[in-house]
Amino acid sequence: MKEIFISHDKHQEDNLLGILRSYGMAPAAPCGGKGICGKCRVRILKGDTTLCAPYDENQVITREEWDNGYRLACRTRVVEDLVIEVPDSHNANANIMTDCFSDTHLKPVIFKKYIELSKPSLIDQASDVDRIEREAGGAVVRDIDLVRKLPDILKNNDYKVTCVIAADEIIAVEGGDTSGACYGVAVDIGTTTIVGMLIDLNTGAEVAIYSCLNPQKQYGDDVISRIDYTRSYPDGLSKLNSLIINQLNDMLGFFCSKYDIPPACIYHMNLVGNTVMIHILSAVSVDSIAISPFNPVFTRFVGARGKDFGLDMCPEGLVTVLPTPAGYIGADTIACLSACGMAAQPGQALMIDIGTNGEIALGNRENIVACAAAAGPAFEGGHIECGVGGIAGAINKVRLDKSHVSYTTIDDAPAMGICGSGLVDAIAGMLKLGLIDSTGKIITRQEARERFSIDIVSRLRECSGKPCFLIASKETGAQRDIYITQKDIREVQLAKAAIMAGIKVLLHECKADYDDIETVYLAGGFGNYIDMDSATAIGLIPVELRDKIVPIGNGALTGAKLSLKSSDQMAEAGRIYKLIRYVELSSRPDFQDLFVDCMELV
Amino acid sequence: MKEIFISHDKHQEDNLLGILRSYGMAPAAPCGGKGICGKCRVRILKGDTTLCAPYDENQVITREEWDNGYRLACRTRVVEDLVIEVPDSHNANANIMTDCFSDTHLKPVIFKKYIELSKPSLIDQASDVDRIEREAGGAVVRDIDLVRKLPDILKNNDYKVTCVIAADEIIAVEGGDTSGACYGVAVDIGTTTIVGMLIDLNTGAEVAIYSCLNPQKQYGDDVISRIDYTRSYPDGLSKLNSLIINQLNDMLGFFCSKYDIPPACIYHMNLVGNTVMIHILSAVSVDSIAISPFNPVFTRFVGARGKDFGLDMCPEGLVTVLPTPAGYIGADTIACLSACGMAAQPGQALMIDIGTNGEIALGNRENIVACAAAAGPAFEGGHIECGVGGIAGAINKVRLDKSHVSYTTIDDAPAMGICGSGLVDAIAGMLKLGLIDSTGKIITRQEARERFSIDIVSRLRECSGKPCFLIASKETGAQRDIYITQKDIREVQLAKAAIMAGIKVLLHECKADYDDIETVYLAGGFGNYIDMDSATAIGLIPVELRDKIVPIGNGALTGAKLSLKSSDQMAEAGRIYKLIRYVELSSRPDFQDLFVDCMELV
Repeated sequence: MKEIFISHDKHQEDNLLGILRSYGMAPAAPCGGKGICGKCRVRILKGDTTLCAPYDENQVITREEWDNGYRLACRTRVVEDLVIEVPDSHNANANIMTDCFSDTHLKPVIFKKYIELSKPSLIDQASDVDRIEREAGGAVVRDIDLVRKLPDILKNNDYKVTCVIAADEIIAVEGGDTSGACYGVAVDIGTTTIVGMLIDLNTGAEVAIYSCLNPQKQYGDDVISRIDYTRSYPDGLSKLNSLIINQLNDMLGFFCSKYDIPPACIYHMNLVGNTVMIHILSAVSVDSIAISPFNPVFTRFVGARGKDFGLDMCPEGLVTVLPTPAGYIGADTIACLSACGMAAQPGQALMIDIGTNGEIALGNRENIVACAAAAGPAFEGGHIECGVGGIAGAINKVRLDKSHVSYTTIDDAPAMGICGSGLVDAIAGMLKLGLIDSTGKIITRQEARERFSIDIVSRLRECSGKPCFLIASKETGAQRDIYITQKDIREVQLAKAAIMAGIKVLLHECKADYDDIETVYLAGGFGNYIDMDSATAIGLIPVELRDKIVPIGNGALTGAKLSLKSSDQMAEAGRIYKLIRYVELSSRPDFQDLFVDCMELV
Repeated sequence: MKEIFISHDKHQEDNLLGILRSYGMAPAAPCGGKGICGKCRVRILKGDTTLCAPYDENQVITREEWDNGYRLACRTRVVEDLVIEVPDSHNANANIMTDCFSDTHLKPVIFKKYIELSKPSLIDQASDVDRIEREAGGAVVRDIDLVRKLPDILKNNDYKVTCVIAADEIIAVEGGDTSGACYGVAVDIGTTTIVGMLIDLNTGAEVAIYSCLNPQKQYGDDVISRIDYTRSYPDGLSKLNSLIINQLNDMLGFFCSKYDIPPACIYHMNLVGNTVMIHILSAVSVDSIAISPFNPVFTRFVGARGKDFGLDMCPEGLVTVLPTPAGYIGADTIACLSACGMAAQPGQALMIDIGTNGEIALGNRENIVACAAAAGPAFEGGHIECGVGGIAGAINKVRLDKSHVSYTTIDDAPAMGICGSGLVDAIAGMLKLGLIDSTGKIITRQEARERFSIDIVSRLRECSGKPCFLIASKETGAQRDIYITQKDIREVQLAKAAIMAGIKVLLHECKADYDDIETVYLAGGFGNYIDMDSATAIGLIPVELRDKIVPIGNGALTGAKLSLKSSDQMAEAGRIYKLIRYVELSSRPDFQDLFVDCMELV
């Protein structure tokens, strides 16, 4: 379950189903939003439920459910601010909470300390600042603005105050005992999706999660288009920067309004993301990242305060970002490495984060090499004829035998496309049956007729004059015909070749082979849902590593969360940054050959 | 010689003599500004000398001098911006340059480094920040604004840049080689006078000095009246703060315009002053300092940048202030202690800074105790019937014998008042001759007649019904009758008693006696000009210490200058701050008795 705040100001009278979709969610709505199928139901927790949608006995909601606030998103209009509860199945990023690693020891960078100071006397003339500092365990005041405020805070609160301490600095002093309210937010800024988590820094509790599309998407799906935009318009960078800052403020607003937390009680925002996203977040030029030699402006974020970034949190609160070691190895990779713990282990491990760029890292606690393979968006459904992301109705599993094709969809919704895991399943199945050969070529109906059922043969079709294979058809309940084209197979081959060649380069760099690798950590939603047998069958992951794979879900967010909860983990991220050596694939003479070699489906 | 910038904007058409006086200077003008005596001559270095004042053959300036820019201040009007050269004798603070200690090893906190960076390549993809940092000897970038500017600075200057380094931080990066221009300013903010010194941080050269009255004087002569003002008006603190900041900007403007230095090339301003002046400079409340227990808001300045204080210097340049250990022991005392070096020596030494508050410190490299004696302004001519500061025409030396009184004045100008050193001389002389007894009482004419010449006896007069003693009269060339009243003697007794009692308390605290003291450092102008025999004769300084006295001039400015030139000296100031223990005299039961005991003139 996920709770979402819907602002009336922002979404006047809009239909709730549309709003959820604009937030990157995908509630199933096979009836087309006619209020018949009942799949898009949500529950209204706050807001006038009567005004939102009149009761309709024809809707597939019982009167009792109705009275408990349940509504169909497609039939609900936003006539005032709402807080709604959305089932995980509506969420395109249902995997965001996946976190297969045990929690870290709670020791946040930021903590509060309530102190009752002795009052000044002729025997004890210590200054206000000294008076605070001697009770603050070695932390000191460094901000002249805090010094200016201090006398009034002390006098108006009878010298009973709460210090907000960040490492060795007292960043704020609050009147009375406010030690109970101390929050932080961990954020993964993806090129596509932004996910944030509100954490109670006193208890480590993960209070809430927030997910939305990256609003920069309107300026391009990938980082290169975003960079192009900043290069093409004088205000391009500042525009993309404002979009992300505003979105983060929406997130903070949601958390604060939902949990009744004053914005000033959010003292730390710890962010990860790829290097381009982090540069844009910091309003730093991304020009150099797009063109060879792809060097970023910074790799180690210099640190900032909430007020420096215009964030609606404690103005003196910390804004931290994990290091971004290279133009195409970002803070998200550091976070994944920290989340899976491979940089702390003696044995060699491989970490693969498959997305538009496949980030790959190999190593152990002494040495890590990393590279970025331009895998393209095939595994996210991009550049695939019938491809979709991991949303309701996406075909996520496919089984083929000589006579039949079967599949499942996310949320069991009528099929409306195929996502990465379904695609890999389908190609692996076709390869195994011989519907494609190891070069990826789809066989002709002629060739198929001798070996396959009529059903299979009939699925071998043509699409714009090119061969394709039908997975699901309208006649059997899908929302549309869903097939895999010859070009789709080529896209997958290119993507998996890039990743496989990257793995081989790293092995070469480490003078290691598959036997040396103890674990393969697979990050990202795709890593969670992919069928490992299919992945090894097509050679996306070497078959030798089949039994060593451990999916780690959204390792980026997990890493951001861990370093928010623990200054040791924050330091560990810094250590990983120093440990890591980036290998630029484009500068390697052997990469092109390896890439071509890996095109074969084996 | 001193160079001064006179702004036409500020002083439209004003008479230059009046302007110099408004700056706290006192050019002699016995002719009353009629252009006859020639004592107020200055030299115009910059500005149209023809317009300022027409040539007048009756003036006491030769045609050759005229052509070289010499003018009489009293005959000159400011019709455009001027830079003038003023003889030291015109300067009420002629002692400001006094500095009897050898210079420190040049090792400023701020320095510049010119570097030619290698350009990014596929072999060396280091980020812009990393590229700079690895050449900067361990210093790092910490300011996100600098990160934002860096790509353009590097690209536009072919990767040849100059880093401005402050300790372990790169605070600015400038295109090309600007390493030749690196300046700092040391400032002593006195309650009465502000003195600043421009220093070339590359060479240590003391380029120029600037002195002016503290513009806060209009709100009271002493710190208590200033505090009262801030307590009485809601905008009082911000008003006094603006006055000092504007005055510092005038100083910076003078330095920059005179020496053709861009304001952005002043990278460090290091300030000292008493605790109240430093709090006001920092826009921090001074409420608590006025009332028991007199504790300040801070003792260790937290550090600031030029932009934080609105100073017309490099916005990222450092603003530092030496520590202010207590409400009445300020950064000026720390500076004096650092200037005289007593905190580095094994032997016990005493440091006395005589002003409105007499700050006294006793100790050595292991232990220093300090106190503030409310001496009052008597030694600065305050609350003294005919008292004046150390300006031209002030009686600064007095000699008495049984039949005569003789005196000298500053600049040999006609006597117009008596300053601290003259006052001490006069009282010591009167005491020695028996014109006053050890309780300070002036004898009657009756008592005098048997022992003194007619001249002496005739000087014993009455003023408003109270006995007084005439030092100089109109008839013998003084501008007015100048005498010492019974009340003046009481003022001096109170002042010297406060200082002597303070010394005794500190000795008691250190379980030391006079024999243990190796040196007595006397800070301030008064310390430079006072006759030591007279000072010991009246018991201002114990006679046992007579031969151990070393005047150190403006130790506060010297200390500010040393710590600007040397980070070791800056660290030493921090060490002294930790070493020092403040003794609050008002809380000591023994102080009042000691104070009364010390009233006697011995």
